[in-house]
Amino acid sequence: MSTTPYETLVADLKEANVIGSIGSLLGWDQQVNLPPKSHDRRGEQMAALSKVYFTASTNPRIGESLKALEAKGDAATDDEKAVRRHVRKDYDRLTKLSAEFVAEKARLDTEAFQVWTQAKPANDFAMFAPYLQRQIDMSRREAAMLGEPDAYDYLIDKHDPGMTAARIEALFDELKRDLVPLVRRIVDSPVKADQSRFKGFPAELQRVFSREISAAVGFNFDRGRLDTAVHPFCSGDAKDTRMTTKFKEDFPLSSVFSSLHESGHALYEQGLPMDQIGTPLGEAVGMGMHESQSRLWENQVGRGRAFWKRFEPRFREVFAPRLDGVSSEALYLAINDVGLTPIRVDSDEVTYNLHIILRFEIERALFAGTLEVADLPAVWRAKAKELLGLELKSDAEGVLQDVHWSGGAFGYFPSYCIGNMIASQLWYAVLKQMPDIEKDFERGDFSRLLGWLRTSIHAHGRRYDTEDLVKRVTGEGISPKYLIRYLDERYVPLYRR
Amino acid sequence: MSTTPYETLVADLKEANVIGSIGSLLGWDQQVNLPPKSHDRRGEQMAALSKVYFTASTNPRIGESLKALEAKGDAATDDEKAVRRHVRKDYDRLTKLSAEFVAEKARLDTEAFQVWTQAKPANDFAMFAPYLQRQIDMSRREAAMLGEPDAYDYLIDKHDPGMTAARIEALFDELKRDLVPLVRRIVDSPVKADQSRFKGFPAELQRVFSREISAAVGFNFDRGRLDTAVHPFCSGDAKDTRMTTKFKEDFPLSSVFSSLHESGHALYEQGLPMDQIGTPLGEAVGMGMHESQSRLWENQVGRGRAFWKRFEPRFREVFAPRLDGVSSEALYLAINDVGLTPIRVDSDEVTYNLHIILRFEIERALFAGTLEVADLPAVWRAKAKELLGLELKSDAEGVLQDVHWSGGAFGYFPSYCIGNMIASQLWYAVLKQMPDIEKDFERGDFSRLLGWLRTSIHAHGRRYDTEDLVKRVTGEGISPKYLIRYLDERYVPLYRR
Repeated sequence: MSTTPYETLVADLKEANVIGSIGSLLGWDQQVNLPPKSHDRRGEQMAALSKVYFTASTNPRIGESLKALEAKGDAATDDEKAVRRHVRKDYDRLTKLSAEFVAEKARLDTEAFQVWTQAKPANDFAMFAPYLQRQIDMSRREAAMLGEPDAYDYLIDKHDPGMTAARIEALFDELKRDLVPLVRRIVDSPVKADQSRFKGFPAELQRVFSREISAAVGFNFDRGRLDTAVHPFCSGDAKDTRMTTKFKEDFPLSSVFSSLHESGHALYEQGLPMDQIGTPLGEAVGMGMHESQSRLWENQVGRGRAFWKRFEPRFREVFAPRLDGVSSEALYLAINDVGLTPIRVDSDEVTYNLHIILRFEIERALFAGTLEVADLPAVWRAKAKELLGLELKSDAEGVLQDVHWSGGAFGYFPSYCIGNMIASQLWYAVLKQMPDIEKDFERGDFSRLLGWLRTSIHAHGRRYDTEDLVKRVTGEGISPKYLIRYLDERYVPLYRR
Repeated sequence: MSTTPYETLVADLKEANVIGSIGSLLGWDQQVNLPPKSHDRRGEQMAALSKVYFTASTNPRIGESLKALEAKGDAATDDEKAVRRHVRKDYDRLTKLSAEFVAEKARLDTEAFQVWTQAKPANDFAMFAPYLQRQIDMSRREAAMLGEPDAYDYLIDKHDPGMTAARIEALFDELKRDLVPLVRRIVDSPVKADQSRFKGFPAELQRVFSREISAAVGFNFDRGRLDTAVHPFCSGDAKDTRMTTKFKEDFPLSSVFSSLHESGHALYEQGLPMDQIGTPLGEAVGMGMHESQSRLWENQVGRGRAFWKRFEPRFREVFAPRLDGVSSEALYLAINDVGLTPIRVDSDEVTYNLHIILRFEIERALFAGTLEVADLPAVWRAKAKELLGLELKSDAEGVLQDVHWSGGAFGYFPSYCIGNMIASQLWYAVLKQMPDIEKDFERGDFSRLLGWLRTSIHAHGRRYDTEDLVKRVTGEGISPKYLIRYLDERYVPLYRR
């Protein structure tokens, strides 16, 4: 029996994906297990495997199968259409860049990262600026080589298929209009959360609680693990999902929400069609949609009263007697602590979005040519003042704070906020269909919500682009109004004195 | 600058080795971390990586470099001679077997293993016999394809370069002569160890003690780890050494000695020349020599009075108050507990050798054609009676007890006993040069011993064959008399009433 071009393509994609999954495991092991001086060996292993992965994923037969599938035009099945569309993008991105370009980019990534690690503590933006400029130039060249008319749109599409800078700008402008005054209202409130009572929560007990809530929301430990790493992440796929968290003895709520966040990512992975792993039909839509899943579980579910109705008694029991004397209301306020900080990664779910809008506006201007790299520190400070009301003391807590740009990861930041918007929008769609769903949570039952996400989002893989899928599920395109509504409903009553 | 055939060869070998090291990590992860239902994914990963490894290690350029090096004849350097000799063996073993043969062997291994897992609990040797016969036939065919005149010698050489069945027979006959009466003398003694006091030793405390003694003997935790697995093992290489142990709450001495045993393997790996990893000059001689290192640290060092003079107080402290009322002499006797069991893996360092001799004699007769598979159960029982004085109740505790033969691993068992003989022989060579070395141990200082092993054994990689290296280091070929002397000196006084 002869195989069709589609079958051949799927087999080749899956073969490359298996190699890629080994790289993912090596990366997980590096963060979780690697002995401190064994990084040289891991470097050799990653380099060797990258070569193998590149060979497998640029297999010329993939190109031939693609052409054959494209020649079918409208006669192609829906699966074939979805697969050929994404694989064409991926394949071109891998094969149309010259070897010299790829090598130059790899060198620049290493160099720029090294320089950034020095420039940040030295608070020396001028030192980093030439590398940032080169990364911008490289991104433009990359887009040009692929025949993309707009470099920034191309970068955004890499993370969130179908999204554009113009679309994001419209969304963020609307969001900003309501969010800036909301944040002001919360931080000006005399109501303040108190984190000082959370001292000396042993890591071993935090591990117990984290595992319990991950299992409760539906993480399948038969096909996954929860370990510790310096920076929490989720890797692997539906067949073997590895997530990590970290335990701070004086900030136990951090591991609770990092565990829920990574569980959200993991539930998406575990919900993708297992027999399609390696093809676009078995992969997540993109970063924004992935983030919507992690945020929905972390925030809409995990920071809600229903969740804590179920888990507060257990939380107190696991850590007894450490929460004696802390009232339920004080605990709930600590869970929903909002405050201003110049540092994105330390910020709460409300102000986080403003940090993202700041970065997006700067990236957009840089790529539009209306902002020069040299002017970045001043513009950053001005926007921090405008959006957050903060006077920055240094560039280390301003333009130099994030690692992303040193690796040329432009168009990546917006996904976080897109994810937040989608999470809220999905949440209200759920509430519309199942108004009493929080009663489930009070019993520790999250199966209806997970089932809905499985059917509505996970099962489709990458069949639909980000906004198309949102439209399909909620009946309208992405809208910031749900995020505003959610934040209003959760935080305004809480911070009303 | 042009590269020499030797440089090209070394580069190609190292490239293949890096891929192999990824496989080793996947194997480690499988034993230590893999979620229970993720075996399907690991299978896909291992299969994909095996293909890549096979391609890399059968790279035709390796064959060309080898031919060029062989053409140099005596003009080759010592390094070149050592490398070409071993790589020729390895390369032929990989390239001269037909693809059909390799596929048939892989199928048989899987099938025979499955059948063995059923036959053992069913105590049904007849069920397993045809598969054992096929494995023997496959081994003969493999040897024939490689032009090897004797199949069993070929199999032995794979594990211990340069050893032969005739040589092992001579060694084991001599060993048996003295060992059988020594075992009888010990087991007939009224002196008996008492393990009943070792109850409820928490795994976490055993982990602390295991890590301490591993670090004390010199294991480099900056380039290695100690984790837990169902079957303890040591994998990886000098750059990243992963060993495992297991903790039985009612048998804490088990993890002590398994940790020392695996540390011995790990110290060998960590002592191999790091810049030669991937070439024979950066690899261990073979299984017997590897086992000599693990056994030397486990037994000659770890079961000695000097070691426990240093570590008994700490052992009591870590597990306090669990050893209150157990005298030092009772503890030392428990450490050196000798008794008869039909099961090899449960046996002590004295009787273990008789289990090996039994297996060797059977393998030798099978391959010599003087024993038929159908007669195996009866012959096994007869030998168990002759060597151990045991009347077996079933084949499950006899001929069906070990997994090895189901995978066609013939010529593998003898290495364990060869390792024991070499360990004792090295030990007396050390004592001759440093008669006071046990005074070091009493202080917890193992650096002189480790330094000596590094220089005498580890530094040479696979430059010398097993017995040649023993001769180089001790001035004579392998001799069983040192093992007998060691066992006599340690156990006769202890079991004298």
